[in-house]
Amino acid sequence: MEDVMAGDELVRRYVELIGGGGSTDEIVGLYAADAVLEDPVGSEPRRGHAAIREFYAVLEPLDREAELVTSRIIGTRAAFLFRLTTRAGGRTMDISPIDVMEFDDAGKIVSMQAYWGPDDLILR
Amino acid sequence: MEDVMAGDELVRRYVELIGGGGSTDEIVGLYAADAVLEDPVGSEPRRGHAAIREFYAVLEPLDREAELVTSRIIGTRAAFLFRLTTRAGGRTMDISPIDVMEFDDAGKIVSMQAYWGPDDLILR
Repeated sequence: MEDVMAGDELVRRYVELIGGGGSTDEIVGLYAADAVLEDPVGSEPRRGHAAIREFYAVLEPLDREAELVTSRIIGTRAAFLFRLTTRAGGRTMDISPIDVMEFDDAGKIVSMQAYWGPDDLILR
Repeated sequence: MEDVMAGDELVRRYVELIGGGGSTDEIVGLYAADAVLEDPVGSEPRRGHAAIREFYAVLEPLDREAELVTSRIIGTRAAFLFRLTTRAGGRTMDISPIDVMEFDDAGKIVSMQAYWGPDDLILR
């Protein structure tokens, strides 16, 4: 039986995995089975592990790192700013979203909305 | 007839008013009549202008300033980090929430959730 992760631990672990510290399956494993992901906000939400896996799988082949800039965590709700840097084909991309998450009592993410627009994505 | 404010303009104006650049009524005027405010997240939501006015009225007597640190705005949805400094009775308090807002087509705030905890409040 897994330990229940507290919100701050979950957020740190999420950013670590996004930054290349783990597999797509490990990222998906942070989500509840029927979780809903909306990234960026305004896009069609993805529901459930299969749709969420498809979303994160694009990260797997990329050389990448991520850094948690600041987080606000209150019980089962969190908002945090982080920076993800990816390198592929000689290009470097920085993206810095504000993510909003809600967790369930089992310490799994039940909803995630990522706030970012074209201005928050820098190609160099 | 008022012009419809775009999301980025609304967020800038909100922070300006919070920081002492206007009255409680001007803050309340940024909200739709049936808007819902949850500050901090996890507290009982306040619905409608009267409840929202009561919430912001506590700011009015305080010497204060506010600064928008960073914002992510996509259409009618926004997340932003700001810092509010208040001075009263010889004490200075800094609070730095991440606010999440949704706007309606008339450019009014329909929902606001403020993410902050005890660690995000500094008394000095």
